[in-house]
Amino acid sequence: MLPLENPLIANLPQPQRERLAARIATRRLAEGEILFHQDDPADAFYIVITGVIKLFRLSPDGGEKVVELINPGQSFAEALMFVGEKRYPVSAQAMADAQVAEIPGDLYLKLMRECPESCFTLLGDLSRRLHGLLMELDRVTLQRSRERLLTWLREEANKTVEGGDTVRLTVSKRVLAARLSFQPETLSRLLRTLKSEGVIREQGDAIILLRDDDPF
Amino acid sequence: MLPLENPLIANLPQPQRERLAARIATRRLAEGEILFHQDDPADAFYIVITGVIKLFRLSPDGGEKVVELINPGQSFAEALMFVGEKRYPVSAQAMADAQVAEIPGDLYLKLMRECPESCFTLLGDLSRRLHGLLMELDRVTLQRSRERLLTWLREEANKTVEGGDTVRLTVSKRVLAARLSFQPETLSRLLRTLKSEGVIREQGDAIILLRDDDPF
Repeated sequence: MLPLENPLIANLPQPQRERLAARIATRRLAEGEILFHQDDPADAFYIVITGVIKLFRLSPDGGEKVVELINPGQSFAEALMFVGEKRYPVSAQAMADAQVAEIPGDLYLKLMRECPESCFTLLGDLSRRLHGLLMELDRVTLQRSRERLLTWLREEANKTVEGGDTVRLTVSKRVLAARLSFQPETLSRLLRTLKSEGVIREQGDAIILLRDDDPF
Repeated sequence: MLPLENPLIANLPQPQRERLAARIATRRLAEGEILFHQDDPADAFYIVITGVIKLFRLSPDGGEKVVELINPGQSFAEALMFVGEKRYPVSAQAMADAQVAEIPGDLYLKLMRECPESCFTLLGDLSRRLHGLLMELDRVTLQRSRERLLTWLREEANKTVEGGDTVRLTVSKRVLAARLSFQPETLSRLLRTLKSEGVIREQGDAIILLRDDDPF
């Protein structure tokens, strides 16, 4: 099954896509099998169909440094084709039985040159994906900070003698930021959100934990 | 100060970059000021120089849905230029005093067409950034799962009567995965890493927490 829905392929016009499809080879790899070695001539890029491909470099002391794990649907080595690099800077190995689609770099660039507009379409597509990933990363990082902040507030709340749902913490924001190694903007943003959700209340320099039903 | 180091600009050859620079306008926005409204004609894209720009849509009930926050160095609306869209699908507003560089879309595409190779260079650049973000997202997600797993193991360890550094937990992996809503692969990967680092040991179906000096 060729990965024709991958943006690198899907953004080509139909005739070019068909000519390319005819030249895409599917390769099967057993667990541990090497697809290419570091410094091999880079004349193709790949899209993972099944399995996971590990990209790695060997360090001077013989150790292995994993550069990236490539999952199904993802491409690798395509950046080399665009910038015209001649050799793979990493080795590629199958983590388990895997299938990859091998796309000849020279033919791919030739087809792209025939229809410069597809270059723009692909640029638009990659731009959108970049923005999406930046947002996702922001979301995950903020969620993680939220968990750390609430864990810490709960621990502090447990140390106080008062019982009940409402626990007053005399924790200054300066101390909080230092203790949790937060960027000041991240802490402000989090406190703002928690206040608007009714999880905390601020009174002067103190933070009051109002309820503790955060689902994480 | 023009953002000439941004990949969208930096990947143009020198003569094109200079012609573009002469047409880039710097705009200053006060806190809350609107840069463009949803459905305005989309004839430029932007790079944030200072401040933060909020992209948002208005929902049918008049509520505001924040689509993205754009930080200094980042571009926005460039994807629209590449795919030739005619109107902004969002509104853009300054979160605090901000400066943005305004790049005319028609001139930008004209200059790109004059040197198709710069299109490839930019594609290579965006590909690399995509791979970098995917790795970063993977790293952050895994770190977050690690924190959740260790927090849970500690809580379970506190429930046992044995003291000392080594606490035996009779927690099956099936129970663990269900309790923490982990993907099976994520759990396997985490347990493998924690074992290799000497944080846990596995004995049959039980997980033994060997030391508790994880720095988070």
